[in-house]
Amino acid sequence: MSLVSRAIVLLSGGLDSATLLAIAKKQNFSCYTLSFDYGQIHRSELTAAAKIAKQLNVEEHKVMKVPIGTLGGSALTDTDIPIPNESVAGIPVTYVPARNTIFLSLALAWAEVLDAKAIFIGVNAIDYSGYPDCRPEFVSAFQLLVNIATKQGLEGDFIEIKTPLIDMTKAEIISKGVNLGLDYSITVSCYKADTLGRACGGCDACRFRKEGFKAAGLVDPTQYQPV
Amino acid sequence: MSLVSRAIVLLSGGLDSATLLAIAKKQNFSCYTLSFDYGQIHRSELTAAAKIAKQLNVEEHKVMKVPIGTLGGSALTDTDIPIPNESVAGIPVTYVPARNTIFLSLALAWAEVLDAKAIFIGVNAIDYSGYPDCRPEFVSAFQLLVNIATKQGLEGDFIEIKTPLIDMTKAEIISKGVNLGLDYSITVSCYKADTLGRACGGCDACRFRKEGFKAAGLVDPTQYQPV
Repeated sequence: MSLVSRAIVLLSGGLDSATLLAIAKKQNFSCYTLSFDYGQIHRSELTAAAKIAKQLNVEEHKVMKVPIGTLGGSALTDTDIPIPNESVAGIPVTYVPARNTIFLSLALAWAEVLDAKAIFIGVNAIDYSGYPDCRPEFVSAFQLLVNIATKQGLEGDFIEIKTPLIDMTKAEIISKGVNLGLDYSITVSCYKADTLGRACGGCDACRFRKEGFKAAGLVDPTQYQPV
Repeated sequence: MSLVSRAIVLLSGGLDSATLLAIAKKQNFSCYTLSFDYGQIHRSELTAAAKIAKQLNVEEHKVMKVPIGTLGGSALTDTDIPIPNESVAGIPVTYVPARNTIFLSLALAWAEVLDAKAIFIGVNAIDYSGYPDCRPEFVSAFQLLVNIATKQGLEGDFIEIKTPLIDMTKAEIISKGVNLGLDYSITVSCYKADTLGRACGGCDACRFRKEGFKAAGLVDPTQYQPV
């Protein structure tokens, strides 16, 4: 039995999940990163995720293909629904139905097989887009489910859902990552990133990121698309 | 707005889920069936599911490919782990890590997109194999999660997880299905079914099924593999 516990880290390729991975490593977990090819239009985030996993020297990086894009219902997977450049009241069209529930469920399967002790997910309830499945209540409900749904849970050995970013501002997340030596230039947050991973600068994800660097007083290394 | 509510029905191709679909239809739901190609060795259940969906005239039948088989850890997806012919204490090797959590999560995404009011799952806590994700506690925990995780939940319009089989014996399930006009000869329950859908007669799933027909006093229409 290894003295180091294993953790699954959900890695989208964006700024938050890169920071999440750096935090998990700092906490001495043996990290297994998981990305999803779910039909997202901004596919360059998958390239970014692979780069981050390599740079942070994870045990294994896995990309799972999940067919949620074919269901439609979100601007992130359906080119017919434009991605807005303004904040909206309520849940925005970039919401992907049940996405975090699905991602955590698949991470849970891998955690069970690896006998991992934790699943890290980079949800954030401060500088975020108002998705229902990013809230602390959602994480608590999923934790309860995990304790009941699994072989480990039945045997009293729980898998912990860890959300170290949940109460942090974007500026705090960025400062933390810079302190941990992260190179944010390889991360892709933009919903409309081009194939080179260059950001649009206008979508929700870009705005939160831009303002984060500004508030942290740090130089924004993001590569933007030429206007 | 249609007067008839939509429901997602998880359809494995076995006896339980066929009965489940018949019950959902009887309850006047407009039914969308969902099967999973998850790397199960007994793939003929997928053929059975398609037949059942057609025979019961559902609105749409969808097969989602999910990559849990590649994770290993179960006799149902890994040919190196033999499927036992005896009941065991504890959770058997046929348990697939997080399977029902993953299946319900994907059903939830489709339910959100279709604005369905219910998800039917054929879990049963009487004549079953002791999987943690078949217990009433699991269903309750998933229902709590659904209410919090979804756009509908935030808007006070819940999606109900329905488990009409949960407290029924296998014999009761069979009697119910026969009353609803089901033809069980097209269903496949066996973990070792051959490509023609013929059952081994010895695995857990076969034993529960056989004993169910016997207890119900009904002729077992299952096609068994030649000895």
